[in-house]
Amino acid sequence: MAWSVCVVGSVALDSVETPSGNAPDILGGSASYFAVAASFLAPVRMVAVTGSDFPAGEREFLASRGIDLDGLVEVEGKTFRWTGRYHDDMNVRDTLDLQLNVFAEFSPQLPPAYRKSELMFLANIQPGLQSSVLSQLEDCRYSGADTMDHWIEGDREALESLLADVQLLSINDSEASLLTGERNMVAAAEAIRAMGPAALVIKRGEYGALLFTDDGVFAVPALPLAHVVDPTGAGDCFAGGMFGSLAASESLDGPALRRAVVYGSVLASFAVEDFGLNRLRTLSRADVTGRFQEFADLTRF
Amino acid sequence: MAWSVCVVGSVALDSVETPSGNAPDILGGSASYFAVAASFLAPVRMVAVTGSDFPAGEREFLASRGIDLDGLVEVEGKTFRWTGRYHDDMNVRDTLDLQLNVFAEFSPQLPPAYRKSELMFLANIQPGLQSSVLSQLEDCRYSGADTMDHWIEGDREALESLLADVQLLSINDSEASLLTGERNMVAAAEAIRAMGPAALVIKRGEYGALLFTDDGVFAVPALPLAHVVDPTGAGDCFAGGMFGSLAASESLDGPALRRAVVYGSVLASFAVEDFGLNRLRTLSRADVTGRFQEFADLTRF
Repeated sequence: MAWSVCVVGSVALDSVETPSGNAPDILGGSASYFAVAASFLAPVRMVAVTGSDFPAGEREFLASRGIDLDGLVEVEGKTFRWTGRYHDDMNVRDTLDLQLNVFAEFSPQLPPAYRKSELMFLANIQPGLQSSVLSQLEDCRYSGADTMDHWIEGDREALESLLADVQLLSINDSEASLLTGERNMVAAAEAIRAMGPAALVIKRGEYGALLFTDDGVFAVPALPLAHVVDPTGAGDCFAGGMFGSLAASESLDGPALRRAVVYGSVLASFAVEDFGLNRLRTLSRADVTGRFQEFADLTRF
Repeated sequence: MAWSVCVVGSVALDSVETPSGNAPDILGGSASYFAVAASFLAPVRMVAVTGSDFPAGEREFLASRGIDLDGLVEVEGKTFRWTGRYHDDMNVRDTLDLQLNVFAEFSPQLPPAYRKSELMFLANIQPGLQSSVLSQLEDCRYSGADTMDHWIEGDREALESLLADVQLLSINDSEASLLTGERNMVAAAEAIRAMGPAALVIKRGEYGALLFTDDGVFAVPALPLAHVVDPTGAGDCFAGGMFGSLAASESLDGPALRRAVVYGSVLASFAVEDFGLNRLRTLSRADVTGRFQEFADLTRF
């Protein structure tokens, strides 16, 4: 019986254009990516909001992954929509259209059963809302958060308050620099960990990820992939794989955190192989285990 | 008794400006960096040219590292000089001045004793000259080469001829893309290995390196460093550490190649911590062994 993972974030309908093609109106949002990725490893609960236009088939897909949807509230109106286009260099993307719709009024409420979740992940939403979720928890062993440039630049005070209360922060390298003014990742990590989170994960896309803790630094390269179709949601799948692994191992020690970062890399590596969550729709637990071994082979010397 | 490593390349006097400061008229050049790095692990011979202005103290420094200097020819005139400035993003640099001087007429000749070197590394010079060195070898077990955008764009035919004859190519990711037209490194590696070299090392600066062989792919992250002073010569130190390790292990099998890539990363990580070769002037073999262990700790899970 693994620990439970609860995630709060967005559910969206995305329209994505990449050098590989187009995918209109597909399931997206940080909570969706996180929850589906984590569901391969542990029980997951999600707190998010959809509009009345949200496809019943997508709700069924989430339920089919064993995800507890008591916290997925449907309200009258339209679901959050994002339209984006990736450049040939898929590290760069343009947002072509953004409609917050029902997400604009999102005020996350944990159903009573969720308040005792052992692990909590606060995906990228307004930091004040992230803190409000933390205050609803009763018996949480470990909490992590993601954030983005928009909040670092525009809601710094609320973000710093949040950082003082979470055990782990998961952000990308440019966000780490923006948050600290440090271009060097060792210096940035020191500064961020001084703000609160004992564990910092710095995501570097196709280059992999770094984990900074009191035990030192752990680096995992990304698996070189022959075909990268759509990077959307890779960071959320990374966090989902990471927290799913922590929940499955029922441990928060150094080795468990390292394995969790590898499982995060595993789930992210699958996610980018097709549009949206498509690759994860047909993924098996054996695929996940097999790729974990590929990461071991990749870095063994 | 380890195998011998022979390197052909440049010896230069560099003037370097980085965000950390300035260093005028310091020892540089691909052969210098390679030979000093490799000298921590195995016997090295270097083939290069200096002018009559080359400081006697720098020749003594190279000799003090046990480097065989029979192939380091001094001719009347000035030593190759490079002046460059790094941006705050040290992945970007501008060449402010370049004086080939005696290097313009460099036509590498292997002293007779060098022709039986077990390992040969052709640092970045004109590919026709690199091939002329290969033709002087009598009993070489393994040869590797580096190259650069200038030759990829301007001397393609000679470069392709060289690639058919070497066992290993060591280049950076942008050069791999330029050589193949492939942005994806898996696709680029497949294309390059089809041109000849069974082993391909793709250097990614602060992100580490990839090794592609028939055994699959090996990835080593760079060690996150708190202070990067000067990236000049890191790639040549990488190659020197790699070939020094192969020579010391007297093996070219899969595990030996992986360890070699880690030793390459070790020497490169030291090199960037100070200007030019300064860090390597005080480095000990124990430092090298200690950092190899740091890389093991960095990636272990």
